[in-house]
Amino acid sequence: MSMRTPFTDLVGVRHPIALAPMGGAAGGALAAEVSNGGGLGLVGGARGALDWLDRELTLVTGRTSRPWGVGFLTWAVGAAAIERALSYRPAAVMLSFGDPAPFAPRVLAAGVPLIVQVTDLDEARRALDAGADVIVAQGAEAGGHGGGRATLPFVPAVVDLAAPRPVLAAGGIADGRGLAAVLALGAAGAMIGTRFQASQEALIPAVVGKALVEAAGEDTERGRVHDVARASGWPHRYTARTLRNEFGDRWRGREDELRRDRAAQEEFLAGTARGDLDVMPVWAGESLDLITDLPPATDIVARLAADAEAAIARVARAGVPDRAH
Amino acid sequence: MSMRTPFTDLVGVRHPIALAPMGGAAGGALAAEVSNGGGLGLVGGARGALDWLDRELTLVTGRTSRPWGVGFLTWAVGAAAIERALSYRPAAVMLSFGDPAPFAPRVLAAGVPLIVQVTDLDEARRALDAGADVIVAQGAEAGGHGGGRATLPFVPAVVDLAAPRPVLAAGGIADGRGLAAVLALGAAGAMIGTRFQASQEALIPAVVGKALVEAAGEDTERGRVHDVARASGWPHRYTARTLRNEFGDRWRGREDELRRDRAAQEEFLAGTARGDLDVMPVWAGESLDLITDLPPATDIVARLAADAEAAIARVARAGVPDRAH
Repeated sequence: MSMRTPFTDLVGVRHPIALAPMGGAAGGALAAEVSNGGGLGLVGGARGALDWLDRELTLVTGRTSRPWGVGFLTWAVGAAAIERALSYRPAAVMLSFGDPAPFAPRVLAAGVPLIVQVTDLDEARRALDAGADVIVAQGAEAGGHGGGRATLPFVPAVVDLAAPRPVLAAGGIADGRGLAAVLALGAAGAMIGTRFQASQEALIPAVVGKALVEAAGEDTERGRVHDVARASGWPHRYTARTLRNEFGDRWRGREDELRRDRAAQEEFLAGTARGDLDVMPVWAGESLDLITDLPPATDIVARLAADAEAAIARVARAGVPDRAH
Repeated sequence: MSMRTPFTDLVGVRHPIALAPMGGAAGGALAAEVSNGGGLGLVGGARGALDWLDRELTLVTGRTSRPWGVGFLTWAVGAAAIERALSYRPAAVMLSFGDPAPFAPRVLAAGVPLIVQVTDLDEARRALDAGADVIVAQGAEAGGHGGGRATLPFVPAVVDLAAPRPVLAAGGIADGRGLAAVLALGAAGAMIGTRFQASQEALIPAVVGKALVEAAGEDTERGRVHDVARASGWPHRYTARTLRNEFGDRWRGREDELRRDRAAQEEFLAGTARGDLDVMPVWAGESLDLITDLPPATDIVARLAADAEAAIARVARAGVPDRAH
């Protein structure tokens, strides 16, 4: 079985599943394997460092003949990175967090589907105005950066706003039940991060993989301690969901003080560099309760698709003609 | 059509829909009409004031011959109120927010299904230990009091923990798409508050009904300003989602100061008593984007059921045999 939606039709994939372009973690290998599994793999281009892009986009094109894409942080990327990405002929370009208007025309002129991620209804309106072909409605249960809406009520509101343009749901989806649920909400597919971060191909240290498998949804929190500690430049309106850790506990609520504390910032950078889980931010979503292994990404795609079909069949069977009741 | 799940079988209703027992707003008339529509109406017994209970339970028993129930705030209710409720022969008793262990044996001994609402996995474990027949997994997008989990990833985690006992999903569900979605997550039904608060039968002032219809999900926030202002006694771990208003804006982050400011507390009580929307807490969930009218509750139940069936049928049609792809 495969599942056909306006999203699968638009980008030419078998399953309504997209890899969230997690900066750094979603490299060419992970994106290629998600695409090989029948989803849309999106390389996490982050701020658009050209050498990283060249390496990972060469990897993805070498490893899959299926459609793949690339995503960037809108507030941080430049035109050169978009241009470089387009030169590799992606099946989609995604822009997240910030105003897509400056970059949208170039992507659309190239005839490449433009995916824009939004975290509230205002952002959704601006993305539609900019000409986005696909809107990603991201809920606050997502790992990494995001806004304040929750996926379940946010997605149908964006679906109503964007119709007939397709919407992907992001945030809190890690198994086939979640995929089936967001399709029921009217989404044309799911964008999935944390579940793919916990995979064989994600570019993460082994300690992070272990931590993801062991932790629970309630071990995560949204905050901006790590953004302050590394002076990341992230716009203030976006917080990030990470595993709670000792450094975060120490500085939560004291971000202004941390901003002025050079020693603490250096402690953060050193701890992060050496992979110290008490210090480094481990991006992770609330769906961690559903994640207990680190399989190959193609297996994750296959499981998501099969379990979604099973969930849909289970729910369809619950309907009973009134006479029989 | 109707929809059969372990929840509908247990309490004997046609649709997997339960009215959230919203203290004050969910009186006997609203509960009766939800039950008449084929859902399970639950009267919002709150702290268990006996005169209010007698009035509303007399109302519900007079207005419906279908199964109905009653819910209480576990941290605030006493044994006498539980006893009084049982004397009216409800089809279910629900306990929310607090340790259900002291009251569970009495309800179970009466042979009445016990529904326990939880906001994290620890609470879910304790509810199961106490013998709950049904667990309600409530997400933070819900209106009124609650915890910090999001419905979409929380529900399947509770379903896995509680199996084979049925789980209802609460928080963020206001239309048939949301009902279909939580069934796909593995829930045996949806518990719905805000959508029924915006109905003809809810015990709310007209200005509140108008505000609910006009406001959007992003006009809501979680906080505890109103609990501090009225010294409500609510356990600190539970915040409440309300419409943002002037009083909340003024005191957010200054709750300790408000606790000592008698004049501000009196301003709050007076404003709430006269129905001033700038002051009073209007309990409302993030699903407000989906709520644009104030229909009779039976119509809401019928729409929820019909639209859920349509959503399930739509998603089932998306599946295509591989050969045809």
